[in-house]
Amino acid sequence: MEEQKEIINKMIGKQSILFSNPPNILAGSSVAGKKEGEGPLGSFFDQIEEDPMFGGDNWEDAESRLMKRAAELAIEKAGLRSEDIRYLIGGDLLGQLIATSFGIVDLNIPIFGIFGACSTMGESMALGAIIVDGGYADRVLSLTSSHFAGAEKQFRFPLAYGNQRPLSASWTVTGSGAVVIGKDKPVSKDNDKENGVITIKGVTVGKIVDYGLKDSMNMGACMAPAAYDTISRNLKDLNVLPNYYDKIITGDLGYVGKDILIDLLKQDGFDISSNHMDCGIQIFDKETQDTHSGGSGCACSAITLTGYVFKKLMRHEWTRILFVPTGALLSQVSFNEGNSVPGIAHGVILEVC
Amino acid sequence: MEEQKEIINKMIGKQSILFSNPPNILAGSSVAGKKEGEGPLGSFFDQIEEDPMFGGDNWEDAESRLMKRAAELAIEKAGLRSEDIRYLIGGDLLGQLIATSFGIVDLNIPIFGIFGACSTMGESMALGAIIVDGGYADRVLSLTSSHFAGAEKQFRFPLAYGNQRPLSASWTVTGSGAVVIGKDKPVSKDNDKENGVITIKGVTVGKIVDYGLKDSMNMGACMAPAAYDTISRNLKDLNVLPNYYDKIITGDLGYVGKDILIDLLKQDGFDISSNHMDCGIQIFDKETQDTHSGGSGCACSAITLTGYVFKKLMRHEWTRILFVPTGALLSQVSFNEGNSVPGIAHGVILEVC
Repeated sequence: MEEQKEIINKMIGKQSILFSNPPNILAGSSVAGKKEGEGPLGSFFDQIEEDPMFGGDNWEDAESRLMKRAAELAIEKAGLRSEDIRYLIGGDLLGQLIATSFGIVDLNIPIFGIFGACSTMGESMALGAIIVDGGYADRVLSLTSSHFAGAEKQFRFPLAYGNQRPLSASWTVTGSGAVVIGKDKPVSKDNDKENGVITIKGVTVGKIVDYGLKDSMNMGACMAPAAYDTISRNLKDLNVLPNYYDKIITGDLGYVGKDILIDLLKQDGFDISSNHMDCGIQIFDKETQDTHSGGSGCACSAITLTGYVFKKLMRHEWTRILFVPTGALLSQVSFNEGNSVPGIAHGVILEVC
Repeated sequence: MEEQKEIINKMIGKQSILFSNPPNILAGSSVAGKKEGEGPLGSFFDQIEEDPMFGGDNWEDAESRLMKRAAELAIEKAGLRSEDIRYLIGGDLLGQLIATSFGIVDLNIPIFGIFGACSTMGESMALGAIIVDGGYADRVLSLTSSHFAGAEKQFRFPLAYGNQRPLSASWTVTGSGAVVIGKDKPVSKDNDKENGVITIKGVTVGKIVDYGLKDSMNMGACMAPAAYDTISRNLKDLNVLPNYYDKIITGDLGYVGKDILIDLLKQDGFDISSNHMDCGIQIFDKETQDTHSGGSGCACSAITLTGYVFKKLMRHEWTRILFVPTGALLSQVSFNEGNSVPGIAHGVILEVC
């Protein structure tokens, strides 16, 4: 009977999955750069590194070191060693995922390399939860990273050019977030006030959504339709209203994208204006940090999740949230060739118990 | 009892998975470029396109069109429509996976974007099999692509430079292979002689292996240690000898990498010299096609698998093979910064019944 229920329950609606034995978050880590440490969420991060090079030789090396540190910290916080992790699922923004490849090679863990632009944390947690729930691993590590200087060099201009940024542009977060997902109950706690166990209740896998926008300096507008598509699909698949969630948390839509998202969802009769939060808006101070439309990058949603959101859940201030990191699927080449900037967003349902 | 067996069986050894209800290959498609069509496997491919631009505006657009064609063909051969596919798992070699993003956007299928360099077909089939076996989807589409001109531009020089290639260099295959994986039995057959049903019996997820080699013009040598690591681990995890498989099929080691692989495995007491096949060696004619160490690229192993290997299995000429596509984890940036070229290889066990 129990097994019958399991088989029926896994596929929900068109794109969603609900896990019959929701995997647990065994630990999460958040390593942030200096500017992120000076922002409103600074006190929530595990580590803040003053050196933008993280002791490395170049921006790519810096990001690899950053990711390695987040990976090791998450494993340590879970009370584990790297050999206890069966598979790693991760990626980053750099071409051919070089931050990830060189960052995690020493951990000696079999890896699924993934790319979902800034939605990577959602994709990695979705796959991680599938692998654990399905019994293919006891424990996996889902992680991602981004670095402001590496991303500017990859997608726009090297910092030394000193190019100007329009008000719709966002600021790539320097940081890395890692999550250990497992069957067992977590063994360690940050402190006594944080005693909840976070589980991954389900996921909604996103489609690529292209409204034809071409402005890579307004990625919030490019990604908002994808966030809309995934959130609307999640609510329809689960047959719930937005207030089913204490918070619906998008990745890096920023101020411009947030307004578009809320308008688009109203067309479907969903009003998320009272319980929507965007990590890109949350992570920097608009008045003092000069980040224009807000933060972005894989790490924006990743460290906001592992640093801030996990604590809100573990303290039972929120009990159920929908985490929807958002990605803009462009490259230097696609932009130079005049292509549009399609978006993607993956939804992860987190509950505390 | 049945369920108990399932839970015990999934995790095998350190890195491998054996599926209790091995997912079926519902169909595979192979779309190849002109040069590939002129090679020894030409008659096995579903489609050969004479136009290197595939009707597109640039090399990236060409690859997107190529991938879309392979995706649609695989779905059609499986007797399905795109809305019958729950999830797509795919990626390519271009920075930020633009061939994939722009290629499959119109299919409107939720996607997990992945990157494993030229091991991508193995990674996508491994994840696809996990998702189907676990009951998270009835049917998924695993696919990848590569394009000679796009890859030269991405990793080396634009073709117009006319740069010389050392004898250890390989030739990126222009093509795309796609596989529909599902629970059901396949409904269509290419012809009466091909009546076997191919199942994915298990997978071995690869680690990143870095022997410190830095020669991006000798990728076979860079990837051979990863192939060795995955094959050796597969044999140890399953506690079998190489002759358990009719063929052990690597992706694109070429002539240089093949010799290294066979030597490395001998150190562990495994002799695969009599049943090893490399797709990169198979796909081009060494004497007449001037491809030096052989073929490479995501499509090299993908279309050799879907075009040639699937037919050998369906005709029961082989009954069990280990498919081990191999990837070189480099980018233009990592190469220019003097980094090594780590390798990765994922193993997929295919059986016909």
